[in-house]
Amino acid sequence: MSVLEAIKEEIDKAKSIIIVTHENPDGDAIGSTLGFMHGLKKIEKDVDVFVPIINKMYDFMPGYDLIKKEIPEDKEYDLCISLDSSDLERLGEGRAIFEKASNTIVIDHHITNQNFGDINYVNAVASSTCQNIIVVLAAMGIAINKEMAMCIYSGMLTDTGGFRYNVQPETFEFAGMLLETGIDIAKIYKNLFDVTTLARTKLLGRAIERLELLEEGKIACTYISQKDIEEFENEEGDHENIVNYGRNIEGVEVSIFLREADGYFKVSLRSNEYVDVSRIAAKFAGGGHIRAAGFELNMSLEQAKDTVISEIKSQFKKI
Amino acid sequence: MSVLEAIKEEIDKAKSIIIVTHENPDGDAIGSTLGFMHGLKKIEKDVDVFVPIINKMYDFMPGYDLIKKEIPEDKEYDLCISLDSSDLERLGEGRAIFEKASNTIVIDHHITNQNFGDINYVNAVASSTCQNIIVVLAAMGIAINKEMAMCIYSGMLTDTGGFRYNVQPETFEFAGMLLETGIDIAKIYKNLFDVTTLARTKLLGRAIERLELLEEGKIACTYISQKDIEEFENEEGDHENIVNYGRNIEGVEVSIFLREADGYFKVSLRSNEYVDVSRIAAKFAGGGHIRAAGFELNMSLEQAKDTVISEIKSQFKKI
Repeated sequence: MSVLEAIKEEIDKAKSIIIVTHENPDGDAIGSTLGFMHGLKKIEKDVDVFVPIINKMYDFMPGYDLIKKEIPEDKEYDLCISLDSSDLERLGEGRAIFEKASNTIVIDHHITNQNFGDINYVNAVASSTCQNIIVVLAAMGIAINKEMAMCIYSGMLTDTGGFRYNVQPETFEFAGMLLETGIDIAKIYKNLFDVTTLARTKLLGRAIERLELLEEGKIACTYISQKDIEEFENEEGDHENIVNYGRNIEGVEVSIFLREADGYFKVSLRSNEYVDVSRIAAKFAGGGHIRAAGFELNMSLEQAKDTVISEIKSQFKKI
Repeated sequence: MSVLEAIKEEIDKAKSIIIVTHENPDGDAIGSTLGFMHGLKKIEKDVDVFVPIINKMYDFMPGYDLIKKEIPEDKEYDLCISLDSSDLERLGEGRAIFEKASNTIVIDHHITNQNFGDINYVNAVASSTCQNIIVVLAAMGIAINKEMAMCIYSGMLTDTGGFRYNVQPETFEFAGMLLETGIDIAKIYKNLFDVTTLARTKLLGRAIERLELLEEGKIACTYISQKDIEEFENEEGDHENIVNYGRNIEGVEVSIFLREADGYFKVSLRSNEYVDVSRIAAKFAGGGHIRAAGFELNMSLEQAKDTVISEIKSQFKKI
């Protein structure tokens, strides 16, 4: 029996099902849980979705209001399905529910998945768990309707940055299939990528105001202070993406973004073509990839800037 | 004989071919001309591409350097192919070349196309001319290679705003096919949508600095003065997209962007859900669509702001 057949059999015999996902759920986590929930409801399964903390930005997905933020202690489920989580740990509060269920299924696309379910369908080639959900639904003979498609498309869009990276030919093939159900892809795109807040926009404006080009335009540098964050009443994560504004300027190879936090500075680096910023981060006990890395510097703004710039300059020399 | 068969026959018998496109060519115009050029070169046709003025941003497309900016007066072509242009007028300098050619083919996706060629393949259902080029190449039996795919994908991406709107199921199907050739879609995306200049970024920062929310956050308003444009040495078009930063703030229904030009103000409006901004524009002899419109006001900044805001407020009342 194939894994997909085993999943079908397990779901067929389950009387009550609960779907869980990882903490800090993103669009793929929410999209896959809600999309799969709609699918199971269509074949008249008694199915709940448990996500204790969820960002309001996902409220455009059908079924958002059905998400349970609490499960009574004495409630028992025949089957728990974990979606988009690579291990038990990442399930957070959902872990106890998963461990208590009589049977478990894991569906995921992370290569690091620990196959912690009784049945595991982990296709790491897929760009998103939602892409794997399409395969599972097909194997179960459940036709994807508009509700499911809206959720599943959201997950695919999230994990590919709007079909920008991490895309396989099947990603497009599946996207076309979902589109045929009549979903409004412009609306989904807007909800996932465009909606922002005044505080976030203002913080960006402040960073642009301070943005400067150095080393004949090869380095872009800007910063945000604790005072700025207080002034605009910013929330956690509002600084994300600012570093890309420097990186996107033509001629820039490395973009530096410094963010003051409790007296020290968090440094984000992005590069375009040839500087391996993970090497610079490694010098300061940080981490990352060749084109995106970060670390912390416990020094003044000017010292931090000088330190980072001189490291980048020495990388330039090596090339 | 079908149109596609007629195109194949005409190209087969042509000894020299020139491809032209519309003035101010965008990614679909350049992508389709270069993509089709590569296709015709593959079947060993003698083919030129004429684009007198072209934005450097498209230099990432293979074949960019082969584009001719001038054609000798005495040069004669058997066949002229017009891509992505709805009429003769829009061909600009290319019009004379088109009119002089012995035979002509028009391939386009604009519903307004005037079928001005001897043979016309106008499929207005397609999101881009590049999408139609895929069909034409298939009908001619030319397999799409990586070079062609890179150009054609660029056009599809441009005319759908990165698969955001105006997408058909076939758009995705074709995108998947192009991806199979091994093109680097992240690189194409970046070149088309992310690359910017310091001047453009600074202008955005200035506009964000001045951005204010009015009417309980339902209206976002900002402006750019002639002085800003001089300060940052901005080029034509650098203000584009600024109006969307206001529109993307949650709770905002109408975003206003005022831009000073020769003493008067150009007003751009965007709405999200229910205000028909084309009605407001019509009151001031402007034009546009329900969610995006523009007009001019020959008054001071404060007067212009007050005028626009009071018009929007009266639209709010009607809802």
